[in-house]
Amino acid sequence: MTPEEKLRALGLELPPAPKPVGSYVPAVRSGNLVFVSGQLPMREGELLVKGHVGGPSTTLGAALSLSKGGEVTVEEAQDCARQAVLNALAVVAAEIGGIENVARIVRVTGYVASAPGFTDQALVLNAASDLLAGIFGEAGRHSRIAVGAAELPLGAPVELELVVETQPQA
Amino acid sequence: MTPEEKLRALGLELPPAPKPVGSYVPAVRSGNLVFVSGQLPMREGELLVKGHVGGPSTTLGAALSLSKGGEVTVEEAQDCARQAVLNALAVVAAEIGGIENVARIVRVTGYVASAPGFTDQALVLNAASDLLAGIFGEAGRHSRIAVGAAELPLGAPVELELVVETQPQA
Amino acid sequence: MTPEEKLRALGLELPPAPKPVGSYVPAVRSGNLVFVSGQLPMREGELLVKGHVGGPSTTLGAALSLSKGGEVTVEEAQDCARQAVLNALAVVAAEIGGIENVARIVRVTGYVASAPGFTDQALVLNAASDLLAGIFGEAGRHSRIAVGAAELPLGAPVELELVVETQPQA
Repeated sequence: MTPEEKLRALGLELPPAPKPVGSYVPAVRSGNLVFVSGQLPMREGELLVKGHVGGPSTTLGAALSLSKGGEVTVEEAQDCARQAVLNALAVVAAEIGGIENVARIVRVTGYVASAPGFTDQALVLNAASDLLAGIFGEAGRHSRIAVGAAELPLGAPVELELVVETQPQA
Repeated sequence: MTPEEKLRALGLELPPAPKPVGSYVPAVRSGNLVFVSGQLPMREGELLVKGHVGGPSTTLGAALSLSKGGEVTVEEAQDCARQAVLNALAVVAAEIGGIENVARIVRVTGYVASAPGFTDQALVLNAASDLLAGIFGEAGRHSRIAVGAAELPLGAPVELELVVETQPQA
Repeated sequence: MTPEEKLRALGLELPPAPKPVGSYVPAVRSGNLVFVSGQLPMREGELLVKGHVGGPSTTLGAALSLSKGGEVTVEEAQDCARQAVLNALAVVAAEIGGIENVARIVRVTGYVASAPGFTDQALVLNAASDLLAGIFGEAGRHSRIAVGAAELPLGAPVELELVVETQPQA
Protein backbone atom coordinates (compact mmCIF):
# COMPACT_ATOMS: atom_id res chain seq x y z
CA MET A 1 0.00 0.00 0.00
CA THR A 2 1.14 3.53 -0.70
CA PRO A 3 1.20 6.10 2.10
CA GLU A 4 -1.99 7.60 0.65
CA GLU A 5 -3.68 4.21 0.74
CA LYS A 6 -2.52 3.56 4.30
CA LEU A 7 -3.88 6.94 5.31
CA ARG A 8 -7.28 6.05 3.84
CA ALA A 9 -7.16 2.60 5.45
CA LEU A 10 -6.76 4.41 8.80
CA GLY A 11 -9.93 6.36 8.00
CA LEU A 12 -7.97 9.59 7.56
CA GLU A 13 -7.41 12.07 4.79
CA LEU A 14 -5.13 15.02 4.34
CA PRO A 15 -6.77 18.36 5.08
CA PRO A 16 -6.11 21.39 2.87
CA ALA A 17 -2.59 22.60 3.64
CA PRO A 18 -2.91 25.21 6.41
CA LYS A 19 -1.77 28.76 5.74
CA PRO A 20 1.04 30.12 7.91
CA VAL A 21 -0.02 32.25 10.89
CA GLY A 22 2.42 34.99 9.95
CA SER A 23 4.77 36.22 7.23
CA TYR A 24 6.59 33.06 6.26
CA VAL A 25 6.05 30.01 4.03
CA PRO A 26 4.68 26.57 4.90
CA ALA A 27 7.85 24.73 3.91
CA VAL A 28 11.26 25.20 2.34
CA ARG A 29 13.14 22.57 0.39
CA SER A 30 16.93 22.52 0.47
CA GLY A 31 18.51 19.65 -1.43
CA ASN A 32 16.58 16.52 -0.49
CA LEU A 33 15.37 17.94 2.82
CA VAL A 34 12.03 19.67 3.34
CA PHE A 35 11.75 21.85 6.44
CA VAL A 36 8.09 22.18 7.40
CA SER A 37 6.97 25.20 9.42
CA GLY A 38 5.53 24.70 12.90
CA GLN A 39 2.13 23.05 12.73
CA LEU A 40 -0.66 23.58 15.22
CA PRO A 41 -3.65 21.28 15.82
CA MET A 42 -5.91 23.31 13.55
CA ARG A 43 -8.93 21.75 11.87
CA GLU A 44 -11.04 23.88 9.54
CA GLY A 45 -9.34 26.99 10.86
CA GLU A 46 -9.89 26.29 14.57
CA LEU A 47 -7.69 24.75 17.23
CA LEU A 48 -9.09 21.42 18.43
CA VAL A 49 -8.64 22.62 22.00
CA LYS A 50 -6.66 25.29 23.85
CA GLY A 51 -4.61 25.28 27.02
CA HIS A 52 -1.90 23.48 28.87
CA VAL A 53 -1.60 19.72 29.09
CA GLY A 54 -1.75 18.10 32.51
CA GLY A 55 -2.96 19.77 35.62
CA PRO A 56 -1.57 21.64 38.55
CA SER A 57 0.73 19.40 40.52
CA THR A 58 -0.47 20.58 43.92
CA THR A 59 -3.65 21.65 45.58
CA LEU A 60 -1.99 24.97 46.22
CA GLY A 61 -1.30 25.27 42.49
CA ALA A 62 -4.96 24.57 41.77
CA ALA A 63 -6.07 27.14 44.34
CA LEU A 64 -3.86 29.72 42.63
CA SER A 65 -5.07 28.77 39.15
CA LEU A 66 -1.44 28.23 38.15
CA SER A 67 -2.48 25.93 35.36
CA LYS A 68 -3.68 28.97 33.38
CA GLY A 69 -5.82 28.45 30.33
CA GLY A 70 -7.66 25.29 31.07
CA GLU A 71 -6.81 21.67 31.46
CA VAL A 72 -6.08 19.57 28.42
CA THR A 73 -5.89 15.84 29.00
CA VAL A 74 -3.19 13.59 27.57
CA GLU A 75 -5.81 12.00 25.31
CA GLU A 76 -6.91 15.38 23.93
CA ALA A 77 -3.27 16.34 23.44
CA GLN A 78 -2.68 13.11 21.53
CA ASP A 79 -5.56 14.05 19.20
CA CYS A 80 -3.84 17.40 18.76
CA ALA A 81 -0.56 15.70 17.90
CA ARG A 82 -2.27 13.57 15.25
CA GLN A 83 -4.02 16.60 13.75
CA ALA A 84 -0.73 18.50 13.60
CA VAL A 85 0.84 15.53 11.77
CA LEU A 86 -1.95 15.59 9.19
CA ASN A 87 -1.47 19.31 8.69
CA ALA A 88 2.28 18.86 8.31
CA LEU A 89 1.78 16.09 5.76
CA ALA A 90 -0.66 18.29 3.83
CA VAL A 91 2.11 20.88 3.60
CA VAL A 92 4.61 18.23 2.52
CA ALA A 93 2.21 16.90 -0.13
CA ALA A 94 1.74 20.41 -1.56
CA GLU A 95 5.50 21.00 -1.57
CA ILE A 96 6.75 17.81 -3.22
CA GLY A 97 3.73 16.60 -5.20
CA GLY A 98 2.23 14.08 -2.80
CA ILE A 99 3.31 12.14 0.25
CA GLU A 100 4.34 9.18 -1.92
CA ASN A 101 7.44 11.25 -2.68
CA VAL A 102 8.56 11.10 0.95
CA ALA A 103 11.71 8.98 1.24
CA ARG A 104 11.97 9.29 5.02
CA ILE A 105 10.59 11.21 7.95
CA VAL A 106 13.88 12.49 9.32
CA ARG A 107 12.93 14.51 12.35
CA VAL A 108 9.98 15.41 14.54
CA THR A 109 10.28 18.18 17.10
CA GLY A 110 7.28 18.34 19.38
CA TYR A 111 6.45 21.09 21.83
CA VAL A 112 3.78 20.44 24.44
CA ALA A 113 2.36 23.40 26.38
CA SER A 114 2.84 21.95 29.83
CA ALA A 115 1.09 22.72 33.09
CA PRO A 116 3.46 22.80 36.08
CA GLY A 117 4.59 19.30 36.90
CA PHE A 118 3.48 17.69 33.61
CA THR A 119 6.32 15.48 32.36
CA ASP A 120 4.58 13.06 29.96
CA GLN A 121 5.48 14.98 26.82
CA ALA A 122 6.75 11.71 25.27
CA LEU A 123 3.36 10.09 25.77
CA VAL A 124 1.68 12.93 23.88
CA LEU A 125 4.19 12.76 21.04
CA ASN A 126 3.84 8.99 20.72
CA ALA A 127 0.49 9.63 19.04
CA ALA A 128 2.31 11.56 16.32
CA SER A 129 5.05 8.97 16.01
CA ASP A 130 2.63 6.05 15.82
CA LEU A 131 0.61 7.78 13.11
CA LEU A 132 3.73 8.44 11.02
CA ALA A 133 4.80 4.80 11.39
CA GLY A 134 1.28 3.71 10.44
CA ILE A 135 1.32 5.77 7.26
CA PHE A 136 4.91 5.35 6.09
CA GLY A 137 6.05 2.09 7.70
CA GLU A 138 9.84 1.89 8.02
CA ALA A 139 10.21 5.23 6.20
CA GLY A 140 8.11 6.82 8.93
CA ARG A 141 10.46 5.89 11.75
CA HIS A 142 12.03 9.19 12.72
CA SER A 143 14.33 10.81 15.22
CA ARG A 144 12.42 12.90 17.72
CA ILE A 145 12.63 15.37 20.55
CA ALA A 146 9.77 16.27 22.90
CA VAL A 147 9.91 19.45 24.96
CA GLY A 148 7.58 21.16 27.42
CA ALA A 149 6.84 24.73 26.38
CA ALA A 150 5.61 27.50 28.65
CA GLU A 151 3.15 28.77 26.03
CA LEU A 152 2.44 28.05 22.37
CA PRO A 153 1.00 30.26 19.62
CA LEU A 154 -2.75 30.97 19.90
CA GLY A 155 -2.91 28.84 23.05
CA ALA A 156 -2.30 25.55 21.23
CA PRO A 157 -1.48 22.58 23.47
CA VAL A 158 0.87 21.02 20.90
CA GLU A 159 3.09 22.27 18.08
CA LEU A 160 5.05 20.06 15.70
CA GLU A 161 7.95 20.65 13.36
CA LEU A 162 8.96 18.10 10.71
CA VAL A 163 12.01 17.59 8.56
CA VAL A 164 11.38 15.20 5.70
CA GLU A 165 13.68 13.66 3.09
CA THR A 166 12.26 13.48 -0.43
CA GLN A 167 12.87 10.96 -3.14
CA PRO A 168 15.83 12.30 -5.15
CA GLN A 169 13.73 12.72 -8.29
CA ALA A 170 10.76 14.35 -6.54
CA MET B 1 19.39 45.70 -5.36
CA THR B 2 21.66 43.32 -3.48
CA PRO B 3 20.75 42.26 0.06
CA GLU B 4 23.41 44.67 1.36
CA GLU B 5 21.83 47.51 -0.61
CA LYS B 6 18.35 46.62 0.60
CA LEU B 7 19.63 46.60 4.15
CA ARG B 8 21.05 50.08 3.70
CA ALA B 9 17.84 51.26 2.00
CA LEU B 10 16.01 50.15 5.17
CA GLY B 11 18.37 52.36 7.18
CA LEU B 12 20.08 49.34 8.73
CA GLU B 13 23.56 47.93 8.80
CA LEU B 14 25.06 44.71 10.05
CA PRO B 15 26.62 44.95 13.49
CA PRO B 16 29.93 43.25 14.27
CA ALA B 17 29.25 39.51 14.53
CA PRO B 18 28.46 38.79 18.20
CA LYS B 19 30.72 36.41 20.10
CA PRO B 20 29.11 33.27 21.50
CA VAL B 21 28.06 33.40 25.18
CA GLY B 22 29.83 30.11 25.91
CA SER B 23 32.21 27.52 24.51
CA TYR B 24 30.89 27.03 20.98
CA VAL B 25 31.18 28.73 17.59
CA PRO B 26 28.89 31.28 15.95
CA ALA B 27 28.04 29.05 12.98
CA VAL B 28 28.87 25.74 11.35
CA ARG B 29 28.64 25.03 7.65
CA SER B 30 27.77 21.54 6.48
CA GLY B 31 27.41 21.18 2.74
CA ASN B 32 25.35 24.13 1.53
CA LEU B 33 23.69 24.67 4.89
CA VAL B 34 24.89 27.09 7.54
CA PHE B 35 23.62 26.47 11.08
CA VAL B 36 23.77 29.73 13.02
CA SER B 37 23.99 29.60 16.81
CA GLY B 38 21.17 31.06 18.91
CA GLN B 39 21.11 34.84 18.65
CA LEU B 40 19.95 37.19 21.38
CA PRO B 41 18.83 40.80 20.94
CA MET B 42 22.23 42.18 21.86
CA ARG B 43 23.36 45.59 20.65
CA GLU B 44 26.85 46.79 21.56
CA GLY B 45 27.12 44.01 24.12
CA GLU B 46 23.84 44.73 25.94
CA LEU B 47 20.39 43.22 25.64
CA LEU B 48 17.89 45.76 24.27
CA VAL B 49 15.55 44.82 27.11
CA LYS B 50 15.09 41.94 29.55
CA GLY B 51 12.08 39.99 30.74
CA HIS B 52 9.02 38.11 29.61
CA VAL B 53 6.74 39.25 26.84
CA GLY B 54 3.11 39.96 27.65
CA GLY B 55 1.74 40.37 31.10
CA PRO B 56 0.23 38.31 33.85
CA SER B 57 -3.07 36.90 32.68
CA THR B 58 -4.86 37.54 35.97
CA THR B 59 -4.94 40.13 38.69
CA LEU B 60 -3.90 37.39 41.08
CA GLY B 61 -0.91 36.71 38.86
CA ALA B 62 0.02 40.39 39.00
CA ALA B 63 -0.37 40.47 42.77
CA LEU B 64 1.99 37.51 43.05
CA SER B 65 4.49 39.02 40.59
CA LEU B 66 4.22 35.85 38.53
CA SER B 67 5.40 37.70 35.46
CA LYS B 68 8.92 37.75 36.94
CA GLY B 69 11.50 40.02 35.43
CA GLY B 70 9.47 42.82 34.04
CA GLU B 71 6.98 43.33 31.31
CA VAL B 72 8.14 43.48 27.72
CA THR B 73 5.60 44.70 25.21
CA VAL B 74 5.00 43.07 21.84
CA GLU B 75 6.49 46.13 20.15
CA GLU B 76 9.68 45.90 22.24
CA ALA B 77 9.87 42.18 21.53
CA GLN B 78 9.54 42.88 17.80
CA ASP B 79 12.52 45.25 18.07
CA CYS B 80 14.35 42.39 19.79
CA ALA B 81 13.47 39.99 16.98
CA ARG B 82 14.81 42.41 14.37
CA GLN B 83 18.02 42.92 16.34
CA ALA B 84 18.53 39.17 16.64
CA VAL B 85 18.08 38.87 12.85
CA LEU B 86 20.79 41.49 12.27
CA ASN B 87 23.10 39.64 14.64
CA ALA B 88 22.41 36.35 12.89
CA LEU B 89 23.08 37.89 9.49
CA ALA B 90 26.34 39.36 10.78
CA VAL B 91 27.37 35.82 11.72
CA VAL B 92 26.30 34.51 8.32
CA ALA B 93 28.22 37.27 6.55
CA ALA B 94 31.38 36.43 8.48
CA GLU B 95 30.95 32.72 7.76
CA ILE B 96 30.30 32.80 3.99
CA GLY B 97 31.87 36.07 2.89
CA GLY B 98 28.86 38.36 2.89
CA ILE B 99 25.09 38.07 2.85
CA GLU B 100 25.06 38.26 -0.95
CA ASN B 101 26.17 34.61 -0.84
CA VAL B 102 22.89 33.57 0.81
CA ALA B 103 20.85 31.44 -1.58
CA ARG B 104 17.90 31.03 0.73
CA ILE B 105 16.84 31.54 4.34
CA VAL B 106 15.74 27.97 5.04
CA ARG B 107 14.57 28.05 8.62
CA VAL B 108 13.88 30.40 11.48
CA THR B 109 13.23 29.03 14.96
CA GLY B 110 12.08 31.72 17.35
CA TYR B 111 11.75 31.42 21.11
CA VAL B 112 9.83 34.08 22.96
CA ALA B 113 10.14 34.26 26.77
CA SER B 114 6.45 34.29 27.52
CA ALA B 115 4.57 35.56 30.55
CA PRO B 116 1.71 33.28 31.61
CA GLY B 117 -1.10 33.53 29.08
CA PHE B 118 0.92 35.22 26.32
CA THR B 119 0.16 33.45 23.04
CA ASP B 120 1.16 36.02 20.39
CA GLN B 121 4.57 34.50 19.70
CA ALA B 122 3.79 34.58 15.96
CA LEU B 123 3.20 38.33 16.10
CA VAL B 124 6.63 38.85 17.67
CA LEU B 125 8.33 36.65 15.09
CA ASN B 126 6.61 38.39 12.18
CA ALA B 127 9.02 41.27 12.75
CA ALA B 128 11.92 38.91 12.05
CA SER B 129 10.19 37.35 9.06
CA ASP B 130 9.25 40.71 7.53
CA LEU B 131 12.82 41.97 7.89
CA LEU B 132 14.23 38.86 6.19
CA ALA B 133 11.74 39.24 3.33
CA GLY B 134 12.64 42.93 3.08
CA ILE B 135 16.35 42.18 2.77
CA PHE B 136 16.32 39.03 0.64
CA GLY B 137 12.99 39.17 -1.22
CA GLU B 138 11.89 35.71 -2.39
CA ALA B 139 15.10 34.15 -1.06
CA GLY B 140 14.17 35.45 2.38
CA ARG B 141 10.88 33.57 2.58
CA HIS B 142 11.56 30.85 5.12
CA SER B 143 9.94 28.06 7.07
CA ARG B 144 9.42 29.01 10.70
CA ILE B 145 8.42 27.85 14.12
CA ALA B 146 7.57 30.12 17.06
CA VAL B 147 7.60 28.76 20.59
CA GLY B 148 7.00 30.24 24.03
CA ALA B 149 9.96 29.61 26.34
CA ALA B 150 9.87 29.67 30.14
CA GLU B 151 13.18 31.50 30.35
CA LEU B 152 15.92 32.50 27.90
CA PRO B 153 19.66 33.05 28.42
CA LEU B 154 20.58 36.24 30.29
CA GLY B 155 16.90 37.14 30.58
CA ALA B 156 16.47 37.85 26.85
CA PRO B 157 12.85 38.18 25.68
CA VAL B 158 13.62 36.63 22.27
CA GLU B 159 16.14 34.15 20.88
CA LEU B 160 16.48 33.19 17.21
CA GLU B 161 18.12 30.32 15.38
CA LEU B 162 18.68 30.40 11.61
CA VAL B 163 19.51 27.81 9.01
CA VAL B 164 20.67 29.34 5.75
CA GLU B 165 21.50 27.82 2.37
CA THR B 166 24.54 29.27 0.64
CA GLN B 167 25.25 29.71 -3.03
CA PRO B 168 27.01 26.48 -4.11
CA GLN B 169 30.23 28.32 -4.95
CA ALA B 170 30.29 30.41 -1.77
CA MET C 1 44.62 10.63 19.70
CA THR C 2 41.32 9.40 18.30
CA PRO C 3 38.04 10.59 19.86
CA GLU C 4 37.76 7.18 21.58
CA GLU C 5 41.22 7.61 23.06
CA LYS C 6 40.48 11.17 24.18
CA LEU C 7 37.30 9.92 25.83
CA ARG C 8 39.27 7.30 27.75
CA ALA C 9 41.94 9.86 28.64
CA LEU C 10 39.14 11.91 30.23
CA GLY C 11 38.23 8.87 32.32
CA LEU C 12 34.98 8.39 30.43
CA GLU C 13 33.43 5.68 28.30
CA LEU C 14 30.36 5.48 26.12
CA PRO C 15 27.37 3.89 27.83
CA PRO C 16 25.14 1.45 25.96
CA ALA C 17 23.04 3.49 23.51
CA PRO C 18 19.82 4.42 25.34
CA LYS C 19 16.52 3.19 23.96
CA PRO C 20 13.99 5.83 22.92
CA VAL C 21 11.30 6.68 25.50
CA GLY C 22 8.55 6.28 22.87
CA SER C 23 7.79 5.07 19.38
CA TYR C 24 10.65 6.53 17.38
CA VAL C 25 14.28 5.69 16.59
CA PRO C 26 17.48 6.88 18.28
CA ALA C 27 18.86 8.55 15.14
CA VAL C 28 18.21 9.06 11.45
CA ARG C 29 20.88 9.61 8.84
CA SER C 30 20.13 11.74 5.79
CA GLY C 31 23.06 12.27 3.45
CA ASN C 32 26.06 13.10 5.63
CA LEU C 33 23.96 14.39 8.51
CA VAL C 34 22.88 12.31 11.49
CA PHE C 35 19.93 13.66 13.48
CA VAL C 36 20.07 12.27 17.02
CA SER C 37 16.86 12.05 19.05
CA GLY C 38 16.53 14.08 22.24
CA GLN C 39 18.81 12.71 24.96
CA LEU C 40 18.10 12.86 28.66
CA PRO C 41 20.66 12.55 31.47
CA MET C 42 19.96 8.85 31.98
CA ARG C 43 22.57 6.53 33.48
CA GLU C 44 21.74 2.86 33.81
CA GLY C 45 18.10 3.60 33.13
CA GLU C 46 17.69 6.34 35.74
CA LEU C 47 17.82 10.11 35.53
CA LEU C 48 20.83 11.49 37.42
CA VAL C 49 18.49 13.97 39.10
CA LYS C 50 15.04 15.44 38.52
CA GLY C 51 13.62 18.93 38.69
CA HIS C 52 14.15 22.48 37.59
CA VAL C 53 17.50 24.22 37.55
CA GLY C 54 17.98 27.28 39.68
CA GLY C 55 15.72 28.36 42.46
CA PRO C 56 12.76 30.56 43.01
CA SER C 57 13.68 34.15 42.32
CA THR C 58 11.81 35.53 45.30
CA THR C 59 11.04 34.57 48.86
CA LEU C 60 7.39 34.69 47.89
CA GLY C 61 8.13 32.21 45.14
CA ALA C 62 9.81 29.93 47.67
CA ALA C 63 6.88 30.23 50.06
CA LEU C 64 4.54 29.18 47.27
CA SER C 65 6.80 26.31 46.15
CA LEU C 66 6.80 27.78 42.67
CA SER C 67 10.00 25.98 41.84
CA LYS C 68 8.05 22.70 41.62
CA GLY C 69 9.92 19.46 41.59
CA GLY C 70 13.01 20.23 43.53
CA GLU C 71 16.03 22.39 43.13
CA VAL C 72 18.77 21.32 40.80
CA THR C 73 22.01 23.26 41.04
CA VAL C 74 23.99 24.49 38.06
CA GLU C 75 26.72 21.97 38.90
CA GLU C 76 24.24 19.08 38.95
CA ALA C 77 22.75 20.33 35.68
CA GLN C 78 26.23 20.43 34.15
CA ASP C 79 26.69 16.77 35.13
CA CYS C 80 23.36 16.11 33.41
CA ALA C 81 24.53 17.89 30.27
CA ARG C 82 27.70 15.78 30.15
CA GLN C 83 25.72 12.57 30.66
CA ALA C 84 23.32 13.52 27.85
CA VAL C 85 26.33 14.11 25.58
CA LEU C 86 27.69 10.63 26.35
CA ASN C 87 24.27 9.14 25.61
CA ALA C 88 24.04 11.05 22.33
CA LEU C 89 27.52 9.90 21.32
CA ALA C 90 26.59 6.30 22.14
CA VAL C 91 23.70 6.66 19.69
CA VAL C 92 25.98 8.20 17.07
CA ALA C 93 28.53 5.42 17.51
CA ALA C 94 25.84 2.76 17.02
CA GLU C 95 24.51 4.58 13.93
CA ILE C 96 27.74 5.22 12.02
CA GLY C 97 30.08 2.56 13.34
CA GLY C 98 31.98 4.48 16.01
CA ILE C 99 32.60 8.08 16.94
CA GLU C 100 35.82 8.10 14.90
CA ASN C 101 33.51 8.45 11.89
CA VAL C 102 32.27 11.85 13.09
CA ALA C 103 33.49 14.57 10.74
CA ARG C 104 31.97 17.42 12.70
CA ILE C 105 29.55 18.16 15.50
CA VAL C 106 27.25 20.51 13.59
CA ARG C 107 24.62 21.50 16.08
CA VAL C 108 23.71 21.21 19.74
CA THR C 109 20.27 22.26 20.93
CA GLY C 110 20.03 22.28 24.71
CA TYR C 111 16.87 22.63 26.75
CA VAL C 112 17.20 23.39 30.44
CA ALA C 113 14.14 22.96 32.68
CA SER C 114 14.30 26.34 34.33
CA ALA C 115 12.91 27.55 37.62
CA PRO C 116 11.39 31.04 37.43
CA GLY C 117 14.16 33.59 37.04
CA PHE C 118 16.91 31.14 36.07
CA THR C 119 18.77 32.57 33.07
CA ASP C 120 22.13 30.73 33.15
CA GLN C 121 21.17 28.15 30.53
CA ALA C 122 24.40 28.90 28.67
CA LEU C 123 26.46 28.04 31.75
CA VAL C 124 24.76 24.64 31.97
CA LEU C 125 25.31 23.93 28.28
CA ASN C 126 28.98 24.91 28.44
CA ALA C 127 29.59 21.59 30.18
CA ALA C 128 28.28 19.81 27.08
CA SER C 129 30.22 22.04 24.72
CA ASP C 130 33.48 21.68 26.64
CA LEU C 131 33.14 17.90 26.67
CA LEU C 132 32.55 17.78 22.91
CA ALA C 133 35.58 20.00 22.32
CA GLY C 134 37.62 17.79 24.66
CA ILE C 135 36.70 14.64 22.74
CA PHE C 136 36.73 15.88 19.15
CA GLY C 137 39.00 18.94 19.23
CA GLU C 138 38.31 21.29 16.31
CA ALA C 139 35.70 18.88 14.89
CA GLY C 140 33.80 19.19 18.16
CA ARG C 141 33.31 22.94 17.90
CA HIS C 142 29.62 23.29 17.12
CA SER C 143 26.85 25.81 16.67
CA ARG C 144 24.52 25.87 19.65
CA ILE C 145 21.31 27.18 21.08
CA ALA C 146 20.33 27.06 24.77
CA VAL C 147 16.70 27.49 25.77
CA GLY C 148 14.83 27.43 29.08
CA ALA C 149 11.99 24.89 29.01
CA ALA C 150 8.96 24.88 31.29
CA GLU C 151 9.10 21.10 31.75
CA LEU C 152 11.07 18.23 30.20
CA PRO C 153 10.18 14.55 29.74
CA LEU C 154 10.22 12.48 32.95
CA GLY C 155 11.22 15.54 34.94
CA ALA C 156 14.72 15.74 33.45
CA PRO C 157 16.59 18.99 34.15
CA VAL C 158 18.38 18.92 30.75
CA GLU C 159 17.65 17.54 27.29
CA LEU C 160 20.04 17.65 24.35
CA GLU C 161 19.63 17.26 20.61
CA LEU C 162 22.62 16.76 18.31
CA VAL C 163 23.16 17.01 14.58
CA VAL C 164 26.40 15.41 13.48
CA GLU C 165 28.17 15.27 10.11
CA THR C 166 29.75 11.94 9.23
CA GLN C 167 32.81 11.18 7.22
CA PRO C 168 31.60 10.78 3.59
CA GLN C 169 32.64 7.12 3.50
CA ALA C 170 31.15 6.22 6.89
